Amino acid sequence: MKTNKPVQALAEKAEETLSSELLFNGRIVHLYHDTVRLPNGAVGSREYVRHIGGVCVLPLDADGQVTCVRQYRYPFGEVLTELPAGKLDRKDEDRALAALRELREETGYRCEKLTFLGNFYSSPAILDEVIGLYLAEGLTAGEQDLDEDEFLSNIRYPLAQLVDEVQKGNIPDGKSQAAILRTADLLRRRAEGRE
Amino acid sequence: MKTNKPVQALAEKAEETLSSELLFNGRIVHLYHDTVRLPNGAVGSREYVRHIGGVCVLPLDADGQVTCVRQYRYPFGEVLTELPAGKLDRKDEDRALAALRELREETGYRCEKLTFLGNFYSSPAILDEVIGLYLAEGLTAGEQDLDEDEFLSNIRYPLAQLVDEVQKGNIPDGKSQAAILRTADLLRRRAEGRE
Repeated sequence: MKTNKPVQALAEKAEETLSSELLFNGRIVHLYHDTVRLPNGAVGSREYVRHIGGVCVLPLDADGQVTCVRQYRYPFGEVLTELPAGKLDRKDEDRALAALRELREETGYRCEKLTFLGNFYSSPAILDEVIGLYLAEGLTAGEQDLDEDEFLSNIRYPLAQLVDEVQKGNIPDGKSQAAILRTADLLRRRAEGRE
Repeated sequence: MKTNKPVQALAEKAEETLSSELLFNGRIVHLYHDTVRLPNGAVGSREYVRHIGGVCVLPLDADGQVTCVRQYRYPFGEVLTELPAGKLDRKDEDRALAALRELREETGYRCEKLTFLGNFYSSPAILDEVIGLYLAEGLTAGEQDLDEDEFLSNIRYPLAQLVDEVQKGNIPDGKSQAAILRTADLLRRRAEGRE
């Protein structure tokens, strides 16, 4: 059913939780079904997933090369090219430290300079996952240190080519698109003295 | 447990499904728990959500203004500024038609020119949601036509300011970040005659 009534004011109103049920408490995803009071007073339901959140890091070396990871993603049955990323170890883990850890584990790199690019909400209607996006510079090479059920390889691209790969559809991963394009924009701002 | 062994070759190998269980078949999210054969031969488990997928549209008018929506997002308890977006009506729905529909419902606009920017995988480790990103130009104003449990208002920004808002952290929604930055890059390419 559709309505043409203006509902502008209602857009800023919170939905009130009437009841909340944890349907599945997994290792990674935690599924909830809540009953809510909608802004117009009606009762509605919300299905959503809670997730501990994570980080995503763009490692940029002095030659302008970015180190990506190739990794099999089970829900898609595809190997994707993404930026290094991972879940927090604890809900209250410092995201910058998590970024340094994931960078070291997935690429071997340590970095001298870590810049917070911003937060990324993966799918805000159904998932509370927040991914902190970071730019890592001043890289020193080291050894990968993967979890035992993690299988990924590294591949390097110049940043400008990586932007092209995003635009050609070769980097479908959302967080990687955002971090790549935000970094390219940040470097333009730096070059123009705007940052 | 950690391993330092190189696992490069294993990164390109698929995980084999040994069993798959549908734990929750909701209205919007469909939660699965699968047992898999990992590339190293070990048995592992995968928790993931299937979702019908959707579209996200950046409506750009002749003055360079972009129409966004303000909408309460229950998993975050926040009103977010996002681009118009919505779920497919059917798994096999044409995404371009879905983009035109969501554009009309959430902003009232019809458009003469719709450009596919690319696909966006929201959270590929745990969610199979694919969002088709589109740029809509040649806009004609009309009336919003919202679902009865949808409450959103429109707000307009010049595209360059919207890029600033992304960089300042005011647009945390991932699909909106990607569509805004991809559009800004596309318009630069057009201006330089590269597209």
